[in-house]
Amino acid sequence: MAEEKLPKRSEDFAEWYNQLVLRAELADYAPVRGCMIVRPYGWALWENIQQALDRRFKATGHQNVAFPLLIPKHFIEKEKHHVEGFSPELAVVTIGGGEELAEPLIVRPTSETIIGHMWSKWIQSYRDLPVLMNQWNSVVRWELRTKLFLRTLEFYWQEGHTAHATRKEAEDETRQMLDIYADFAVNDAAIPVIPGRKSDAEKFAGADTTYSIEAMMGDGKALQSGTSHFLGQNFAQAFEIRYLDQGGQLQYCWTTSWGLSTRFIGAIIMAHGDDQGLVLPPKLAPYQAVIVPIFKTDAEKNAVMEPAQKLKTDLAKAGLRITLDLREGFSPGWKFNDWEMRGVPVRIELGPKDVAKHAAVLARRDRPGKEGKSSIALADAVNSVAKLLEEIQKSLHDRALAFRQANTKEPRDYKEFKLAVETGFAYSYWCGSADCEAKIKEETKATMRCIPLDQKLGQESAHSSASASCVYCGQPARERAIFGRAY
Amino acid sequence: MAEEKLPKRSEDFAEWYNQLVLRAELADYAPVRGCMIVRPYGWALWENIQQALDRRFKATGHQNVAFPLLIPKHFIEKEKHHVEGFSPELAVVTIGGGEELAEPLIVRPTSETIIGHMWSKWIQSYRDLPVLMNQWNSVVRWELRTKLFLRTLEFYWQEGHTAHATRKEAEDETRQMLDIYADFAVNDAAIPVIPGRKSDAEKFAGADTTYSIEAMMGDGKALQSGTSHFLGQNFAQAFEIRYLDQGGQLQYCWTTSWGLSTRFIGAIIMAHGDDQGLVLPPKLAPYQAVIVPIFKTDAEKNAVMEPAQKLKTDLAKAGLRITLDLREGFSPGWKFNDWEMRGVPVRIELGPKDVAKHAAVLARRDRPGKEGKSSIALADAVNSVAKLLEEIQKSLHDRALAFRQANTKEPRDYKEFKLAVETGFAYSYWCGSADCEAKIKEETKATMRCIPLDQKLGQESAHSSASASCVYCGQPARERAIFGRAY
Repeated sequence: MAEEKLPKRSEDFAEWYNQLVLRAELADYAPVRGCMIVRPYGWALWENIQQALDRRFKATGHQNVAFPLLIPKHFIEKEKHHVEGFSPELAVVTIGGGEELAEPLIVRPTSETIIGHMWSKWIQSYRDLPVLMNQWNSVVRWELRTKLFLRTLEFYWQEGHTAHATRKEAEDETRQMLDIYADFAVNDAAIPVIPGRKSDAEKFAGADTTYSIEAMMGDGKALQSGTSHFLGQNFAQAFEIRYLDQGGQLQYCWTTSWGLSTRFIGAIIMAHGDDQGLVLPPKLAPYQAVIVPIFKTDAEKNAVMEPAQKLKTDLAKAGLRITLDLREGFSPGWKFNDWEMRGVPVRIELGPKDVAKHAAVLARRDRPGKEGKSSIALADAVNSVAKLLEEIQKSLHDRALAFRQANTKEPRDYKEFKLAVETGFAYSYWCGSADCEAKIKEETKATMRCIPLDQKLGQESAHSSASASCVYCGQPARERAIFGRAY
Repeated sequence: MAEEKLPKRSEDFAEWYNQLVLRAELADYAPVRGCMIVRPYGWALWENIQQALDRRFKATGHQNVAFPLLIPKHFIEKEKHHVEGFSPELAVVTIGGGEELAEPLIVRPTSETIIGHMWSKWIQSYRDLPVLMNQWNSVVRWELRTKLFLRTLEFYWQEGHTAHATRKEAEDETRQMLDIYADFAVNDAAIPVIPGRKSDAEKFAGADTTYSIEAMMGDGKALQSGTSHFLGQNFAQAFEIRYLDQGGQLQYCWTTSWGLSTRFIGAIIMAHGDDQGLVLPPKLAPYQAVIVPIFKTDAEKNAVMEPAQKLKTDLAKAGLRITLDLREGFSPGWKFNDWEMRGVPVRIELGPKDVAKHAAVLARRDRPGKEGKSSIALADAVNSVAKLLEEIQKSLHDRALAFRQANTKEPRDYKEFKLAVETGFAYSYWCGSADCEAKIKEETKATMRCIPLDQKLGQESAHSSASASCVYCGQPARERAIFGRAY
């Protein structure tokens, strides 16, 4: 509810975020430290994200599946990097049915191990490959510093897992899924992202290579918004996932995994939100438009309600997600604020004067005030609203991209680098050493977000090859990386 | 895969079931005792069940939500019947992030307690009511005797939870959701069910009244297929879920909960399956039809493949869920068996002779052999297949209903009663005493399944009021109940 104003986004981004999540009723704090409850409005947003991704996964041949929540403890210990990465974060079931368990069970932090175990049973021959699986579930990692959606003890996600006969197929799959995440982020969430490779320090525990999509939030910080891992034969060797090839030889499989989580809701909030609250991209918004009827007298109400109901029916029939705000005891102004807080892309105002003119007023969420208002003919409402939604979708993306570009610097030296990461991204040559990476992090709080696959970042770069030396140590460097402070 | 024949359903129902689940690749045993993996084919079936129910939940105003997996232990202890019912079945997390927890956390066996806790924060006034929520998740109950889908340590379900201002509204909701389950079972799963009230001995731990839908399986045993609970003010009092009514008085809410789980997949298997394997109702089948191209020579293959692809495209465009079996190295006969094992409702055989006649052969899964085969014109395939799917849907329901009616007896005395529950249901007057119920269970292994809401069971009953006495003790009885051995 929108009784009080939010803290200004420009003045206290962190508190603006926290209060927005609560007041837009996206999520709430659970009674267990670090856990969250995703409320109906937040879950409806997540369901739309799920559908947008699931459609893409199925179109590329993946099938959904459900592996158990509980994993024998010794499974986690089979892959050495995996156990190092996850051991400190585990939730452990030691009692079941009133008795101490002989072997404790882990609440899954991710499912590579139990899936690897089953694949070793199911996969026998090259005919069984590739195996292309995905599951929608929740996982538990014992995080100490938590924040709603961004980092919680339990979070919701999808985890894709695939097994292949050859290294190339697995690498192609890893990149394909990264592309799918980027396509979803750009086209459905209107969030421009940078697809790239992670450094060794930042990669998944057990991966040969981790790729991610990185987005810039409204405060210039980075948010890793999806990851895709090429796991080599690490899990195949740890779990004996093997197949008979066409020549009758036993071979280890090559595996991948990839995930996108409810963190992404945090990305949507922080990429698009403003001082009035949430701003949702039309393709993912639970409601794409809200009709607010305006009246004072009973006569006015009578004049307005029938056209309002008809408008709702027309828009819904056209496949738009639409709601009509019939709440009693609240003024139109209060309702406007409430729907602005909830980020509904288009508000349709319908008062007696509009009805008399066979018209309605559209107000677009991404442009507050008079500038974003227009009068439309009721008879043409379906087209007008659909067209406006498309415009908003595009406009949100373009705005976020312009913001990222304005706040991404190509520093000429470490001094400029330090300034750049105060407010956004630094795109700099880096020698590849973990030592430089660690020192940069220590001195600037900025981490290596990714080595962009497109080293031009989608534009012709003015950067000359003369400066191909590490921004920290000055040694020769072959690749540029994005550095930034991150969530 | 269908290398060997299944055990005959009539000879070893239990083993027939176990092997069918594994061979149709619906599920597999997990490495943790009592847990299962739902494989892609099983999960696709569950996704169709989810959609069929979710549509109905949303149409009646319910919203999806996600409450956490982990529940503080003392929450479970707040409602006295609830704690008695669930304490023996709990999985307990005692270690998190490497440290012993101050308070152990329960892996949710169901979510009334944590939802009650949050509602006490969220619900303030009559304006906030009703609250109509649902969540799709998994829960853990430490079952000792497990069986894939029917009873597993972790299972998948939806749990609906609602809060209301008045007893009547909550009672109406409880019954509405029972009706929705029955409608889904009958119309989508083709399983006739008996909606009724549970005895006190069989009701949910914490409910005032539990309702269920009860189905008869192919061996005459009962399967409780969905439950809806009127919780009175039990959880409202335990968790202080209160609201200010219109007169400004603080009142306790009335709450309900209702659930349907992956058990229902067991119901589908056991209600419709036959000696060849699974038989799926068209409305829920992952694939409604499979096209099997038939050829020996390359010339025949060339003749068949293009029409087969076109047929697939045509049927898919018409909204049918369709697959074309292009697996190499398997004979058509092997493929027929494989798809029969998986229960695909319609098989479309397409060989060079059929193509020459612009025809195809449809084989319906519910009528094996020649009787179920018909030749259709390719040009009319969409209509023919759609019509046949409707026929199969209806036929499966009618067959299951006829079977239940044939195996439901109205015994005149306890001797007849004991015979009846050997093979099916006994529909008998019962005095209502827990003592008679317990003795019947002890002596016959039959439990009180439900007291049907429709005491005529949908048909004119020949039963006279003269025999309105308890089948066990002979005392006066007002209601008849369904008794049967159950899963």
